[in-house]
Amino acid sequence: MRFHNRQVVLATRPVGMPCEKDFRIVEQDLAGTAEGQVLIRTHYTSVDPYLRGIMREGPNYIGSIAPGDVVTAGSVGQVIESRHPGCQEGDYVLGMWGWQLYALTDGAHLTRVDPTLAPISTALGVLGMPGLTAYFGLLSLGEPKQGETVLVSGAAGAVGSIAGQIAKIRGCRVVGVAGSDAKVRHLVDDLGFDSAFNYRATPAPLGRLRELCPDGIDVYFDNTGGPVTDAALLHINSFARIVLCGQIAQYNELAMPQGPRLLFQLIVKQARLQGFLVFQFKDRYPEGIAQMATWIRDGRLKYREDILEGIENTPKAFIGLFTGENTGKRLVKYV
Amino acid sequence: MRFHNRQVVLATRPVGMPCEKDFRIVEQDLAGTAEGQVLIRTHYTSVDPYLRGIMREGPNYIGSIAPGDVVTAGSVGQVIESRHPGCQEGDYVLGMWGWQLYALTDGAHLTRVDPTLAPISTALGVLGMPGLTAYFGLLSLGEPKQGETVLVSGAAGAVGSIAGQIAKIRGCRVVGVAGSDAKVRHLVDDLGFDSAFNYRATPAPLGRLRELCPDGIDVYFDNTGGPVTDAALLHINSFARIVLCGQIAQYNELAMPQGPRLLFQLIVKQARLQGFLVFQFKDRYPEGIAQMATWIRDGRLKYREDILEGIENTPKAFIGLFTGENTGKRLVKYV
Repeated sequence: MRFHNRQVVLATRPVGMPCEKDFRIVEQDLAGTAEGQVLIRTHYTSVDPYLRGIMREGPNYIGSIAPGDVVTAGSVGQVIESRHPGCQEGDYVLGMWGWQLYALTDGAHLTRVDPTLAPISTALGVLGMPGLTAYFGLLSLGEPKQGETVLVSGAAGAVGSIAGQIAKIRGCRVVGVAGSDAKVRHLVDDLGFDSAFNYRATPAPLGRLRELCPDGIDVYFDNTGGPVTDAALLHINSFARIVLCGQIAQYNELAMPQGPRLLFQLIVKQARLQGFLVFQFKDRYPEGIAQMATWIRDGRLKYREDILEGIENTPKAFIGLFTGENTGKRLVKYV
Repeated sequence: MRFHNRQVVLATRPVGMPCEKDFRIVEQDLAGTAEGQVLIRTHYTSVDPYLRGIMREGPNYIGSIAPGDVVTAGSVGQVIESRHPGCQEGDYVLGMWGWQLYALTDGAHLTRVDPTLAPISTALGVLGMPGLTAYFGLLSLGEPKQGETVLVSGAAGAVGSIAGQIAKIRGCRVVGVAGSDAKVRHLVDDLGFDSAFNYRATPAPLGRLRELCPDGIDVYFDNTGGPVTDAALLHINSFARIVLCGQIAQYNELAMPQGPRLLFQLIVKQARLQGFLVFQFKDRYPEGIAQMATWIRDGRLKYREDILEGIENTPKAFIGLFTGENTGKRLVKYV
């Protein structure tokens, strides 16, 4: 049996904001599995801000791709042929085969996905990398305590929306920063944030933070960087914990962006600022998945998926992350 | 008995770099102790970079002074009259009575200094606030491990010189950044640093760091901030610890200084950056003093004092901190 594969490859390295011409679709015939191989049909693929980084020249913390390479994002799919002892036809799996309809793999680095636990798409979102990033970043590095104030930037995104809700579960006052009035309403009305504001409509975020966080900020979960982060650092309490998860505000900058030198503020406040990648917690992923699945079942943790359809829409879905199109976890459905 | 006191008071709040006209000497007659009071003769007073901060308007992490107030630095002296049960005539004490020849106090917030442990001047330096800052900042926050590379900025100063030597005692490779060739020689020849460089003669510090720290930086003990810190952050290893102790490069800036936004680098490197004030370790001061006194006795920890004489030279001694005049702990001797 032969399979007609389609792949999104990098056509050229983006310069600044990525555009559709930076990608192209490649057609390919696959002959089916050889001994030891697994053939997977992609159901969902993921678009994530960090992918902007792997498209750059030079060494990268998570590997990099070159023009002509398939974009290696997380995907979930179903095994349709297996000549590998670890996989059976019909299994749902998660892996990094990326933006293509089919993946012919050696079966390594695949994780089984339990379709009875939650919809398989959640393996790319709330029960996958973004959710685990929120869970371990907030709890292990942010160490929120009951009654503390937690500020989350990028709060309507895949990670921020989960981090904020976990902070609520832990009894914190939670304030979100997002990029539209609709997102602000979503955070407060649907996800239970105590308050939120639209940074695009807030030329002086420090003043707004003083209003919305009258007791100061104890934990700042930062997905964006930029002027919102500058303001947050000027409103932290003593012994604040700042969790650096992302800096999406600057992923498409051509030159090193400049900003105020705020390190002295961290001394005065005896604050801790910690950057992390979720992989440092990989031994504890099962704990995080089990806990979040329980919270979802109990109605305490909500998630929204922002799903586009069709492989040809993958680049557009990705590019839209940087203009804030998505609310919740953005995915592209291939089946 | 009457005592003729002289005090250095703030004449006006400094604007930018402090100058001698920002201070004036006030004369005062003291009548001697009333019931419950202690009269102290100052032997040494301290000049420290953080004092620049208390001269500013507005709330301050360590209290602030107004024009007309005595500058409240750390001082050591001898009790010459006591009508307080906690002090005896002849006792040596440490306190925050600051830049004056005599202090008439209520006996609160005085710490006994043991003159048999080390010269009493060390209570303001290696066995006092600067030494304890180095000890707890480096060991508790920097967590240096044998064989790691530790970079220290402001390395010839009161804190940096001790932090670097403690890192050597812990088996690290230690590189110092200082502001003159003479300081660089002192660090390497006298204090045992593995290498050091003069940042004033180094227009591209990142290149120099790559040469001197070929295995990257695991711990950065930062006393200065500014371009040296920018370069250091670009050369840290994964899981680096950055200890923010001071940012003297910007204490006299009139406007908020600008610099590159480097938080993303902390994410990629999964690094921890922690600001602190030594007071958070006050319950452990005895441990730090005992350990450092032992190292001094064993010849493993050296300290240099940079002593000026005469109360009238106190402002000049202070101002010189910001041009890097001092090597080691700068003090002013009043007796």
